[in-house]
Amino acid sequence: MNETEFLAAIRCLATDPAARGFADDAAVLGDLVLTHDMIVEGVHFLPDDPPEDVAWKLAAVNLSDLAAKGAEPVGCLLGYTLGAAAWNARFVAGLREVLARHAMPLLGGDTVRANGPRSFGLTAIGRAARAPSRDGARAGDALYVTGTIGRAGIGLQLLKDGNAGPEIDAYRRPQPRLAEGRALAPLVHAMMDVSDGLLIDAKRMADASGLAVSIDLAAVPVSGDPLDAVVAGDDYELLFAVPTDATLPVPSTRIGHFEEGLGLSLTKAGIAVPLPPSLGWLHG
Amino acid sequence: MNETEFLAAIRCLATDPAARGFADDAAVLGDLVLTHDMIVEGVHFLPDDPPEDVAWKLAAVNLSDLAAKGAEPVGCLLGYTLGAAAWNARFVAGLREVLARHAMPLLGGDTVRANGPRSFGLTAIGRAARAPSRDGARAGDALYVTGTIGRAGIGLQLLKDGNAGPEIDAYRRPQPRLAEGRALAPLVHAMMDVSDGLLIDAKRMADASGLAVSIDLAAVPVSGDPLDAVVAGDDYELLFAVPTDATLPVPSTRIGHFEEGLGLSLTKAGIAVPLPPSLGWLHG
Repeated sequence: MNETEFLAAIRCLATDPAARGFADDAAVLGDLVLTHDMIVEGVHFLPDDPPEDVAWKLAAVNLSDLAAKGAEPVGCLLGYTLGAAAWNARFVAGLREVLARHAMPLLGGDTVRANGPRSFGLTAIGRAARAPSRDGARAGDALYVTGTIGRAGIGLQLLKDGNAGPEIDAYRRPQPRLAEGRALAPLVHAMMDVSDGLLIDAKRMADASGLAVSIDLAAVPVSGDPLDAVVAGDDYELLFAVPTDATLPVPSTRIGHFEEGLGLSLTKAGIAVPLPPSLGWLHG
Repeated sequence: MNETEFLAAIRCLATDPAARGFADDAAVLGDLVLTHDMIVEGVHFLPDDPPEDVAWKLAAVNLSDLAAKGAEPVGCLLGYTLGAAAWNARFVAGLREVLARHAMPLLGGDTVRANGPRSFGLTAIGRAARAPSRDGARAGDALYVTGTIGRAGIGLQLLKDGNAGPEIDAYRRPQPRLAEGRALAPLVHAMMDVSDGLLIDAKRMADASGLAVSIDLAAVPVSGDPLDAVVAGDDYELLFAVPTDATLPVPSTRIGHFEEGLGLSLTKAGIAVPLPPSLGWLHG
Protein backbone atom coordinates (compact mmCIF):
# COMPACT_ATOMS: atom_id res chain seq x y z
CA MET A 1 0.00 0.00 0.00
CA ASN A 2 1.87 3.07 -1.28
CA GLU A 3 0.98 6.66 -0.37
CA THR A 4 -1.75 6.98 -2.99
CA GLU A 5 -3.30 3.68 -1.95
CA PHE A 6 -2.96 4.61 1.74
CA LEU A 7 -4.74 7.91 1.17
CA ALA A 8 -7.48 6.17 -0.80
CA ALA A 9 -7.97 3.64 2.01
CA ILE A 10 -7.97 6.36 4.66
CA ARG A 11 -10.52 8.31 2.62
CA CYS A 12 -12.79 5.26 2.80
CA LEU A 13 -12.77 5.65 6.59
CA ALA A 14 -13.79 9.31 6.28
CA THR A 15 -17.46 8.52 5.81
CA ASP A 16 -18.74 11.21 8.17
CA PRO A 17 -19.96 14.37 6.37
CA ALA A 18 -17.79 16.40 8.79
CA ALA A 19 -14.72 14.90 7.11
CA ARG A 20 -15.69 16.55 3.79
CA GLY A 21 -14.23 13.45 2.12
CA PHE A 22 -10.72 14.57 3.18
CA ALA A 23 -10.91 16.88 0.17
CA ASP A 24 -10.90 20.15 2.10
CA ASP A 25 -8.40 22.09 4.21
CA ALA A 26 -10.17 21.13 7.42
CA ALA A 27 -12.95 19.07 8.97
CA VAL A 28 -16.15 20.95 9.77
CA LEU A 29 -18.22 19.79 12.71
CA GLY A 30 -21.20 22.03 13.31
CA ASP A 31 -19.67 25.49 13.77
CA LEU A 32 -16.25 24.01 14.60
CA VAL A 33 -13.38 23.79 12.12
CA LEU A 34 -10.62 21.28 12.91
CA THR A 35 -7.27 20.75 11.24
CA HIS A 36 -4.09 18.80 12.02
CA ASP A 37 -0.70 19.22 10.34
CA MET A 38 2.57 17.47 11.12
CA ILE A 39 6.13 18.58 10.40
CA VAL A 40 9.17 16.31 10.41
CA GLU A 41 12.83 17.21 10.96
CA GLY A 42 14.86 16.75 7.80
CA VAL A 43 11.71 16.86 5.66
CA HIS A 44 9.68 19.97 6.58
CA PHE A 45 12.39 21.76 8.56
CA LEU A 46 16.14 21.41 9.02
CA PRO A 47 17.95 20.82 12.32
CA ASP A 48 19.66 24.22 11.99
CA ASP A 49 16.48 26.18 11.21
CA PRO A 50 15.71 28.70 13.98
CA PRO A 51 13.45 26.84 16.46
CA GLU A 52 11.30 29.96 16.90
CA ASP A 53 10.53 29.85 13.18
CA VAL A 54 9.72 26.11 13.28
CA ALA A 55 7.14 26.81 16.00
CA TRP A 56 5.80 29.78 14.05
CA LYS A 57 5.39 27.83 10.84
CA LEU A 58 3.79 24.82 12.55
CA ALA A 59 1.12 27.09 14.03
CA ALA A 60 0.80 29.30 10.95
CA VAL A 61 0.11 26.48 8.48
CA ASN A 62 -2.72 25.24 10.69
CA LEU A 63 -4.03 28.78 11.25
CA SER A 64 -4.03 29.24 7.48
CA ASP A 65 -6.36 26.24 7.17
CA LEU A 66 -8.69 27.94 9.68
CA ALA A 67 -8.43 31.18 7.68
CA ALA A 68 -9.45 29.36 4.51
CA LYS A 69 -12.63 28.23 6.27
CA GLY A 70 -13.38 31.71 7.62
CA ALA A 71 -12.83 30.47 11.17
CA GLU A 72 -11.75 32.31 14.28
CA PRO A 73 -9.10 30.40 16.30
CA VAL A 74 -10.48 28.77 19.45
CA GLY A 75 -7.47 26.81 20.62
CA CYS A 76 -4.86 24.21 19.75
CA LEU A 77 -3.27 20.97 20.94
CA LEU A 78 0.48 20.40 20.48
CA GLY A 79 2.31 17.12 19.93
CA TYR A 80 5.95 17.82 20.77
CA THR A 81 9.08 15.70 20.53
CA LEU A 82 11.72 16.89 22.99
CA GLY A 83 15.04 18.08 21.62
CA ALA A 84 18.14 19.71 23.07
CA ALA A 85 17.55 22.07 25.98
CA ALA A 86 18.28 25.30 24.11
CA TRP A 87 16.17 24.17 21.15
CA ASN A 88 13.17 23.49 23.43
CA ALA A 89 13.44 26.93 25.03
CA ARG A 90 13.57 28.72 21.68
CA PHE A 91 10.65 26.66 20.32
CA VAL A 92 8.50 27.67 23.31
CA ALA A 93 9.42 31.33 22.72
CA GLY A 94 8.35 31.12 19.08
CA LEU A 95 5.17 29.27 19.97
CA ARG A 96 4.28 31.88 22.59
CA GLU A 97 4.75 34.60 19.98
CA VAL A 98 2.67 33.05 17.19
CA LEU A 99 -0.16 31.98 19.51
CA ALA A 100 -0.34 35.45 21.10
CA ARG A 101 -0.31 37.14 17.70
CA HIS A 102 -3.32 35.16 16.55
CA ALA A 103 -5.11 34.84 19.90
CA MET A 104 -5.04 31.01 19.77
CA PRO A 105 -4.71 29.53 23.28
CA LEU A 106 -2.81 26.30 23.83
CA LEU A 107 -5.30 23.82 25.31
CA GLY A 108 -3.36 20.60 25.65
CA GLY A 109 -1.25 18.01 23.89
CA ASP A 110 1.49 15.50 24.47
CA THR A 111 5.26 15.48 24.88
CA VAL A 112 7.38 12.51 23.80
CA ARG A 113 10.99 11.52 23.20
CA ALA A 114 12.39 10.00 20.03
CA ASN A 115 15.65 8.42 18.95
CA GLY A 116 16.05 10.10 15.60
CA PRO A 117 14.47 12.90 13.56
CA ARG A 118 11.77 14.64 15.52
CA SER A 119 8.12 15.23 14.54
CA PHE A 120 5.66 17.83 15.70
CA GLY A 121 1.92 17.93 15.24
CA LEU A 122 -0.54 20.68 15.88
CA THR A 123 -4.31 20.45 15.95
CA ALA A 124 -6.03 23.81 15.51
CA ILE A 125 -9.66 24.31 16.40
CA GLY A 126 -11.67 27.26 15.12
CA ARG A 127 -15.23 28.43 14.96
CA ALA A 128 -17.06 29.67 11.86
CA ALA A 129 -20.72 30.48 11.29
CA ARG A 130 -20.33 29.22 7.74
CA ALA A 131 -17.19 27.42 6.54
CA PRO A 132 -16.87 27.58 2.75
CA SER A 133 -15.56 24.40 1.12
CA ARG A 134 -13.26 24.23 -1.86
CA ASP A 135 -15.85 22.46 -4.04
CA GLY A 136 -18.47 25.18 -4.37
CA ALA A 137 -17.18 27.25 -7.30
CA ARG A 138 -19.80 27.88 -10.01
CA ALA A 139 -19.45 28.38 -13.76
CA GLY A 140 -19.01 32.09 -14.38
CA ASP A 141 -17.40 32.76 -10.97
CA ALA A 142 -14.29 34.89 -10.85
CA LEU A 143 -11.12 33.52 -9.20
CA TYR A 144 -9.40 35.89 -6.78
CA VAL A 145 -6.27 35.74 -4.66
CA THR A 146 -5.19 37.87 -1.69
CA GLY A 147 -1.71 39.40 -1.44
CA THR A 148 1.30 38.56 -3.58
CA ILE A 149 2.36 35.15 -4.84
CA GLY A 150 5.96 33.88 -4.97
CA ARG A 151 7.62 35.64 -2.05
CA ALA A 152 7.98 32.44 0.03
CA GLY A 153 9.39 30.60 -2.99
CA ILE A 154 12.05 33.29 -3.41
CA GLY A 155 12.80 33.03 0.31
CA LEU A 156 13.30 29.26 0.06
CA GLN A 157 15.65 29.72 -2.92
CA LEU A 158 17.65 32.36 -1.02
CA LEU A 159 18.05 29.90 1.87
CA LYS A 160 19.10 27.08 -0.45
CA ASP A 161 21.69 29.35 -2.07
CA GLY A 162 22.96 30.60 1.29
CA ASN A 163 21.89 34.16 0.49
CA ALA A 164 19.99 36.73 2.52
CA GLY A 165 16.89 38.75 1.72
CA PRO A 166 13.58 39.93 3.13
CA GLU A 167 11.70 37.10 1.40
CA ILE A 168 13.23 34.58 3.84
CA ASP A 169 10.85 35.90 6.46
CA ALA A 170 7.89 35.25 4.13
CA TYR A 171 9.03 31.62 3.87
CA ARG A 172 9.79 31.10 7.56
CA ARG A 173 7.04 33.18 9.13
CA PRO A 174 3.97 33.03 6.91
CA GLN A 175 1.09 35.28 7.97
CA PRO A 176 -2.20 33.40 7.94
CA ARG A 177 -5.00 35.52 6.44
CA LEU A 178 -7.42 35.09 9.33
CA ALA A 179 -9.15 38.47 9.18
CA GLU A 180 -9.47 38.25 5.41
CA GLY A 181 -10.86 34.71 5.64
CA ARG A 182 -13.53 35.74 8.13
CA ALA A 183 -14.55 38.74 6.02
CA LEU A 184 -14.70 36.69 2.82
CA ALA A 185 -16.39 33.52 4.13
CA PRO A 186 -20.00 34.82 3.89
CA LEU A 187 -19.51 35.91 0.26
CA VAL A 188 -17.46 33.21 -1.45
CA HIS A 189 -18.68 30.10 -3.26
CA ALA A 190 -15.38 28.29 -2.57
CA MET A 191 -12.18 29.12 -0.68
CA MET A 192 -8.83 27.48 0.17
CA ASP A 193 -5.33 28.58 1.05
CA VAL A 194 -2.42 28.54 -1.41
CA SER A 195 -0.02 26.13 0.25
CA ASP A 196 1.38 24.00 -2.56
CA GLY A 197 1.37 26.51 -5.43
CA LEU A 198 -1.20 28.77 -7.08
CA LEU A 199 -1.66 26.60 -10.18
CA ILE A 200 -1.99 23.26 -8.41
CA ASP A 201 -4.30 24.68 -5.75
CA ALA A 202 -6.51 26.46 -8.30
CA LYS A 203 -6.74 23.20 -10.25
CA ARG A 204 -7.74 21.39 -7.04
CA MET A 205 -10.55 23.89 -6.48
CA ALA A 206 -11.71 23.47 -10.09
CA ASP A 207 -11.51 19.66 -9.90
CA ALA A 208 -13.44 19.59 -6.61
CA SER A 209 -16.08 21.88 -8.11
CA GLY A 210 -16.34 19.87 -11.34
CA LEU A 211 -15.36 22.88 -13.45
CA ALA A 212 -12.56 24.25 -15.62
CA VAL A 213 -10.51 27.20 -14.43
CA SER A 214 -8.57 29.67 -16.56
CA ILE A 215 -5.89 31.91 -15.04
CA ASP A 216 -4.49 35.08 -16.62
CA LEU A 217 -0.79 35.04 -15.80
CA ALA A 218 -0.54 38.79 -16.46
CA ALA A 219 -3.08 39.48 -13.74
CA VAL A 220 -1.44 37.47 -10.93
CA PRO A 221 0.31 39.75 -8.43
CA VAL A 222 3.75 38.16 -8.18
CA SER A 223 7.18 38.61 -6.69
CA GLY A 224 9.89 37.61 -9.17
CA ASP A 225 9.32 35.59 -12.31
CA PRO A 226 5.59 34.95 -12.86
CA LEU A 227 6.02 31.34 -14.01
CA ASP A 228 8.20 30.57 -10.98
CA ALA A 229 5.78 32.31 -8.64
CA VAL A 230 2.63 30.46 -9.68
CA VAL A 231 4.18 27.04 -9.00
CA ALA A 232 5.94 27.99 -5.74
CA GLY A 233 4.34 26.98 -2.48
CA ASP A 234 4.12 28.25 1.09
CA ASP A 235 2.55 31.66 0.39
CA TYR A 236 -0.57 30.94 2.45
CA GLU A 237 -2.64 33.51 0.61
CA LEU A 238 -6.36 32.87 0.13
CA LEU A 239 -7.76 31.71 -3.19
CA PHE A 240 -11.51 32.06 -3.68
CA ALA A 241 -14.37 31.89 -6.14
CA VAL A 242 -17.04 34.63 -6.13
CA PRO A 243 -19.65 35.98 -8.55
CA THR A 244 -18.08 38.54 -10.89
CA ASP A 245 -20.26 41.33 -9.47
CA ALA A 246 -19.35 40.70 -5.81
CA THR A 247 -18.11 43.66 -3.77
CA LEU A 248 -15.12 42.38 -1.85
CA PRO A 249 -14.39 43.48 1.72
CA VAL A 250 -10.60 42.93 1.54
CA PRO A 251 -7.83 43.80 -0.94
CA SER A 252 -7.49 41.02 -3.48
CA THR A 253 -6.87 40.52 -7.18
CA ARG A 254 -9.01 38.92 -9.85
CA ILE A 255 -6.80 36.42 -11.66
CA GLY A 256 -9.12 34.11 -13.55
CA HIS A 257 -12.54 32.53 -13.97
CA PHE A 258 -14.40 29.24 -13.79
CA GLU A 259 -16.35 27.73 -16.67
CA GLU A 260 -18.02 24.49 -17.68
CA GLY A 261 -15.49 21.78 -18.47
CA LEU A 262 -12.47 20.35 -16.69
CA GLY A 263 -8.85 21.24 -16.08
CA LEU A 264 -6.63 24.28 -15.80
CA SER A 265 -5.62 26.64 -18.59
CA LEU A 266 -3.24 29.54 -18.49
CA THR A 267 -3.30 32.68 -20.60
CA LYS A 268 -1.26 35.86 -20.72
CA ALA A 269 -3.19 38.89 -21.90
CA GLY A 270 -5.52 36.67 -23.94
CA ILE A 271 -2.86 34.39 -25.46
CA ALA A 272 -2.68 30.73 -24.35
CA VAL A 273 0.45 29.86 -22.35
CA PRO A 274 1.64 26.23 -22.08
CA LEU A 275 1.35 24.82 -18.55
CA PRO A 276 4.67 24.34 -16.76
CA PRO A 277 5.76 20.69 -16.24
CA SER A 278 4.98 20.91 -12.51
CA LEU A 279 1.98 22.87 -11.21
CA GLY A 280 3.33 23.02 -7.67
CA TRP A 281 4.45 20.93 -4.73
CA LEU A 282 3.23 17.33 -4.91
CA HIS A 283 3.38 15.54 -1.57
CA GLY A 284 5.51 12.43 -1.62
CA MET B 1 15.39 23.66 29.05
CA ASN B 2 14.95 20.01 30.06
CA GLU B 3 11.62 18.15 29.97
CA THR B 4 10.46 19.44 33.38
CA GLU B 5 11.35 23.02 32.46
CA PHE B 6 9.75 22.59 29.03
CA LEU B 7 6.51 21.34 30.55
CA ALA B 8 6.53 24.22 33.06
CA ALA B 9 7.03 26.74 30.24
CA ILE B 10 4.32 25.13 28.13
CA ARG B 11 1.96 25.19 31.12
CA CYS B 12 2.50 28.98 31.28
CA LEU B 13 1.02 29.17 27.76
CA ALA B 14 -2.04 27.19 28.87
CA THR B 15 -3.78 30.20 30.37
CA ASP B 16 -7.20 29.44 28.93
CA PRO B 17 -9.58 27.76 31.43
CA ALA B 18 -10.32 25.14 28.75
CA ALA B 19 -6.73 23.91 29.13
CA ARG B 20 -7.42 22.93 32.76
CA GLY B 21 -3.82 23.93 33.45
CA PHE B 22 -2.60 20.89 31.48
CA ALA B 23 -3.35 18.95 34.67
CA ASP B 24 -6.19 16.86 33.29
CA ASP B 25 -6.55 14.05 30.78
CA ALA B 26 -8.08 16.37 28.21
CA ALA B 27 -9.01 19.94 27.39
CA VAL B 28 -12.65 20.86 27.91
CA LEU B 29 -14.16 23.51 25.65
CA GLY B 30 -17.85 24.01 26.36
CA ASP B 31 -19.34 20.55 25.88
CA LEU B 32 -16.36 19.38 23.81
CA VAL B 33 -13.53 17.27 25.18
CA LEU B 34 -10.26 17.28 23.20
CA THR B 35 -7.15 15.16 23.65
CA HIS B 36 -3.99 14.50 21.63
CA ASP B 37 -1.51 11.67 22.18
CA MET B 38 1.58 10.80 20.16
CA ILE B 39 3.41 7.49 19.84
CA VAL B 40 6.94 7.05 18.55
CA GLU B 41 8.55 3.99 16.98
CA GLY B 42 11.21 2.50 19.24
CA VAL B 43 9.75 4.30 22.27
CA HIS B 44 6.02 3.55 22.47
CA PHE B 45 5.94 0.70 19.98
CA LEU B 46 8.49 -1.54 18.28
CA PRO B 47 9.02 -1.92 14.54
CA ASP B 48 7.94 -5.56 14.73
CA ASP B 49 4.75 -4.92 16.73
CA PRO B 50 1.66 -5.85 14.71
CA PRO B 51 0.64 -2.65 12.87
CA GLU B 52 -3.05 -3.38 13.55
CA ASP B 53 -2.28 -3.25 17.29
CA VAL B 54 -0.29 0.00 16.97
CA ALA B 55 -3.34 1.61 15.36
CA TRP B 56 -5.62 0.11 18.00
CA LYS B 57 -3.52 1.39 20.88
CA LEU B 58 -3.08 4.87 19.39
CA ALA B 59 -6.86 5.25 19.16
CA ALA B 60 -7.58 3.46 22.44
CA VAL B 61 -5.33 5.64 24.62
CA ASN B 62 -7.05 8.74 23.28
CA LEU B 63 -10.51 7.16 23.65
CA SER B 64 -9.61 6.34 27.25
CA ASP B 65 -8.99 10.06 27.89
CA LEU B 66 -12.48 10.76 26.51
CA ALA B 67 -13.88 7.98 28.73
CA ALA B 68 -12.29 9.57 31.80
CA LYS B 69 -14.17 12.78 31.02
CA GLY B 70 -17.47 10.96 30.44
CA ALA B 71 -17.40 11.95 26.77
CA GLU B 72 -18.97 10.30 23.75
CA PRO B 73 -16.57 10.15 20.76
CA VAL B 74 -17.37 12.67 18.04
CA GLY B 75 -14.42 12.18 15.72
CA CYS B 76 -10.67 12.17 15.34
CA LEU B 77 -7.81 13.56 13.29
CA LEU B 78 -4.80 11.35 12.44
CA GLY B 79 -1.17 12.41 11.96
CA TYR B 80 0.46 9.52 10.07
CA THR B 81 4.05 8.88 9.01
CA LEU B 82 4.16 6.57 6.02
CA GLY B 83 5.96 3.25 6.38
CA ALA B 84 6.43 0.17 4.24
CA ALA B 85 3.50 -0.74 2.00
CA ALA B 86 2.39 -3.81 3.95
CA TRP B 87 2.71 -1.94 7.26
CA ASN B 88 0.48 0.89 5.99
CA ALA B 89 -2.20 -1.56 4.88
CA ARG B 90 -2.25 -3.38 8.20
CA PHE B 91 -2.33 -0.08 10.14
CA VAL B 92 -5.40 1.03 8.17
CA ALA B 93 -7.09 -2.30 8.90
CA GLY B 94 -6.47 -1.89 12.64
CA LEU B 95 -7.60 1.70 12.58
CA ARG B 96 -10.80 0.78 10.76
CA GLU B 97 -11.51 -1.85 13.41
CA VAL B 98 -10.92 0.32 16.50
CA LEU B 99 -12.79 3.32 15.08
CA ALA B 100 -15.79 1.17 14.11
CA ARG B 101 -15.82 -0.52 17.52
CA HIS B 102 -16.08 2.80 19.30
CA ALA B 103 -18.11 4.71 16.70
CA MET B 104 -15.43 7.38 16.28
CA PRO B 105 -15.33 8.69 12.70
CA LEU B 106 -12.06 9.80 11.14
CA LEU B 107 -12.49 13.47 10.20
CA GLY B 108 -9.11 14.51 8.86
CA GLY B 109 -5.41 14.70 9.50
CA ASP B 110 -2.08 14.74 7.74
CA THR B 111 0.28 12.23 6.13
CA VAL B 112 4.04 12.78 6.07
CA ARG B 113 7.28 10.94 5.34
CA ALA B 114 10.26 10.68 7.68
CA ASN B 115 13.83 9.45 7.42
CA GLY B 116 14.03 7.53 10.68
CA PRO B 117 11.74 6.32 13.46
CA ARG B 118 8.14 7.15 12.72
CA SER B 119 5.66 9.07 14.87
CA PHE B 120 1.90 9.03 14.93
CA GLY B 121 -0.47 11.45 16.56
CA LEU B 122 -4.19 11.24 17.13
CA THR B 123 -6.52 13.99 18.23
CA ALA B 124 -9.80 12.68 19.65
CA ILE B 125 -12.82 14.92 20.03
CA GLY B 126 -15.73 13.99 22.28
CA ARG B 127 -18.84 15.55 23.70
CA ALA B 128 -19.88 15.49 27.38
CA ALA B 129 -22.66 17.33 29.19
CA ARG B 130 -20.39 17.49 32.24
CA ALA B 131 -16.70 16.52 32.13
CA PRO B 132 -15.37 15.67 35.60
CA SER B 133 -11.82 16.84 36.29
CA ARG B 134 -9.23 15.00 38.32
CA ASP B 135 -9.04 17.73 40.97
CA GLY B 136 -12.52 17.52 42.48
CA ALA B 137 -12.13 14.75 45.09
CA ARG B 138 -13.43 15.72 48.56
CA ALA B 139 -12.32 14.61 52.00
CA GLY B 140 -14.38 11.55 52.94
CA ASP B 141 -14.87 10.44 49.31
CA ALA B 142 -14.31 6.80 48.48
CA LEU B 143 -11.83 5.85 45.72
CA TYR B 144 -13.08 3.31 43.21
CA VAL B 145 -11.62 1.57 40.18
CA THR B 146 -13.30 -0.30 37.33
CA GLY B 147 -12.16 -3.74 36.18
CA THR B 148 -8.91 -5.49 37.09
CA ILE B 149 -5.47 -3.92 37.48
CA GLY B 150 -2.20 -5.47 36.29
CA ARG B 151 -3.25 -7.46 33.24
CA ALA B 152 -1.50 -5.14 30.77
CA GLY B 153 1.67 -5.19 32.91
CA ILE B 154 1.72 -8.99 32.77
CA GLY B 155 1.18 -8.80 29.02
CA LEU B 156 4.16 -6.46 28.60
CA GLN B 157 6.36 -8.79 30.68
CA LEU B 158 5.26 -11.79 28.60
CA LEU B 159 6.25 -9.92 25.44
CA LYS B 160 9.62 -8.90 26.90
CA ASP B 161 10.31 -12.52 27.88
CA GLY B 162 9.20 -13.83 24.49
CA ASN B 163 6.33 -15.76 26.06
CA ALA B 164 2.67 -16.06 25.10
CA GLY B 165 -0.49 -15.52 27.12
CA PRO B 166 -3.92 -13.93 27.02
CA GLU B 167 -2.66 -10.84 28.89
CA ILE B 168 -0.72 -9.72 25.77
CA ASP B 169 -4.04 -8.71 24.27
CA ALA B 170 -4.79 -6.55 27.34
CA TYR B 171 -1.48 -4.74 26.71
CA ARG B 172 -1.82 -4.40 22.96
CA ARG B 173 -5.55 -3.82 22.64
CA PRO B 174 -6.75 -1.91 25.70
CA GLN B 175 -10.51 -1.44 25.94
CA PRO B 176 -11.38 2.17 26.76
CA ARG B 177 -14.19 2.35 29.34
CA LEU B 178 -16.40 4.70 27.35
CA ALA B 179 -19.81 3.43 28.49
CA GLU B 180 -18.66 3.30 32.12
CA GLY B 181 -17.23 6.82 31.90
CA ARG B 182 -20.47 8.23 30.52
CA ALA B 183 -22.52 6.49 33.23
CA LEU B 184 -20.20 7.64 36.02
CA ALA B 185 -19.56 11.25 34.92
CA PRO B 186 -22.75 12.73 36.46
CA LEU B 187 -22.00 11.12 39.87
CA VAL B 188 -18.26 11.44 40.46
CA HIS B 189 -16.34 14.27 42.13
CA ALA B 190 -13.17 13.40 40.19
CA MET B 191 -12.25 10.91 37.49
CA MET B 192 -9.20 9.92 35.41
CA ASP B 193 -7.93 6.85 33.60
CA VAL B 194 -5.21 4.56 34.95
CA SER B 195 -2.53 4.88 32.30
CA ASP B 196 0.76 5.09 34.22
CA GLY B 197 -0.05 2.90 37.25
CA LEU B 198 -2.74 2.81 39.91
CA LEU B 199 -0.58 4.27 42.69
CA ILE B 200 0.93 7.13 40.72
CA ASP B 201 -2.42 8.03 39.14
CA ALA B 202 -4.26 7.92 42.49
CA LYS B 203 -1.56 10.16 43.96
CA ARG B 204 -2.01 12.59 41.04
CA MET B 205 -5.75 12.76 41.74
CA ALA B 206 -5.07 13.38 45.45
CA ASP B 207 -2.39 16.01 44.70
CA ALA B 208 -4.66 17.82 42.24
CA SER B 209 -7.50 17.76 44.78
CA GLY B 210 -5.24 18.94 47.65
CA LEU B 211 -5.98 15.82 49.69
CA ALA B 212 -4.38 12.64 50.99
CA VAL B 213 -5.43 9.28 49.59
CA SER B 214 -5.17 5.88 51.28
CA ILE B 215 -5.43 2.65 49.27
CA ASP B 216 -6.17 -0.79 50.70
CA LEU B 217 -3.96 -3.18 48.73
CA ALA B 218 -6.14 -6.14 49.80
CA ALA B 219 -9.16 -4.51 48.14
CA VAL B 220 -7.61 -3.82 44.72
CA PRO B 221 -8.83 -6.32 42.11
CA VAL B 222 -5.55 -7.48 40.55
CA SER B 223 -4.09 -9.96 38.11
CA GLY B 224 -0.83 -11.41 39.45
CA ASP B 225 1.20 -9.98 42.31
CA PRO B 226 -0.64 -7.05 43.95
CA LEU B 227 2.48 -4.89 44.40
CA ASP B 228 3.46 -5.42 40.76
CA ALA B 229 -0.08 -4.72 39.58
CA VAL B 230 -0.54 -1.36 41.34
CA VAL B 231 2.59 0.13 39.75
CA ALA B 232 2.06 -1.33 36.26
CA GLY B 233 0.66 0.95 33.56
CA ASP B 234 -1.50 0.64 30.46
CA ASP B 235 -4.62 -0.82 32.08
CA TYR B 236 -6.86 2.11 31.04
CA GLU B 237 -9.39 1.40 33.78
CA LEU B 238 -11.24 4.34 35.35
CA LEU B 239 -10.31 5.69 38.76
CA PHE B 240 -12.86 7.91 40.47
CA ALA B 241 -13.83 9.65 43.69
CA VAL B 242 -17.45 9.50 44.88
CA PRO B 243 -19.32 9.99 48.16
CA THR B 244 -19.30 6.75 50.18
CA ASP B 245 -23.08 6.42 49.91
CA ALA B 246 -23.23 6.76 46.11
CA THR B 247 -25.08 4.07 44.18
CA LEU B 248 -22.85 3.19 41.27
CA PRO B 249 -24.28 2.39 37.83
CA VAL B 250 -21.35 0.19 36.70
CA PRO B 251 -19.33 -2.67 38.23
CA SER B 252 -16.39 -1.24 40.15
CA THR B 253 -14.45 -1.81 43.36
CA ARG B 254 -13.93 0.45 46.34
CA ILE B 255 -10.19 0.48 47.00
CA GLY B 256 -9.53 3.49 49.24
CA HIS B 257 -10.57 6.88 50.51
CA PHE B 258 -9.60 10.56 50.52
CA GLU B 259 -8.94 12.57 53.66
CA GLU B 260 -7.48 15.90 54.73
CA GLY B 261 -3.71 16.03 54.30
CA LEU B 262 -1.33 15.24 51.47
CA GLY B 263 0.26 12.21 49.87
CA LEU B 264 -0.46 8.55 49.25
CA SER B 265 -0.51 5.78 51.85
CA LEU B 266 -0.96 2.09 51.38
CA THR B 267 -2.46 -0.43 53.79
CA LYS B 268 -3.26 -4.11 53.64
CA ALA B 269 -6.26 -5.13 55.77
CA GLY B 270 -5.60 -2.24 58.14
CA ILE B 271 -1.79 -2.63 58.40
CA ALA B 272 0.45 0.05 56.83
CA VAL B 273 2.46 -1.19 53.83
CA PRO B 274 5.65 0.66 52.73
CA LEU B 275 5.28 2.34 49.34
CA PRO B 276 7.22 0.67 46.51
CA PRO B 277 10.26 2.63 45.22
CA SER B 278 8.41 3.50 41.98
CA LEU B 279 4.69 4.32 41.98
CA GLY B 280 4.33 3.78 38.23
CA TRP B 281 5.56 4.93 34.89
CA LEU B 282 7.27 8.31 34.97
CA HIS B 283 7.51 9.97 31.56
CA GLY B 284 11.06 10.76 30.49
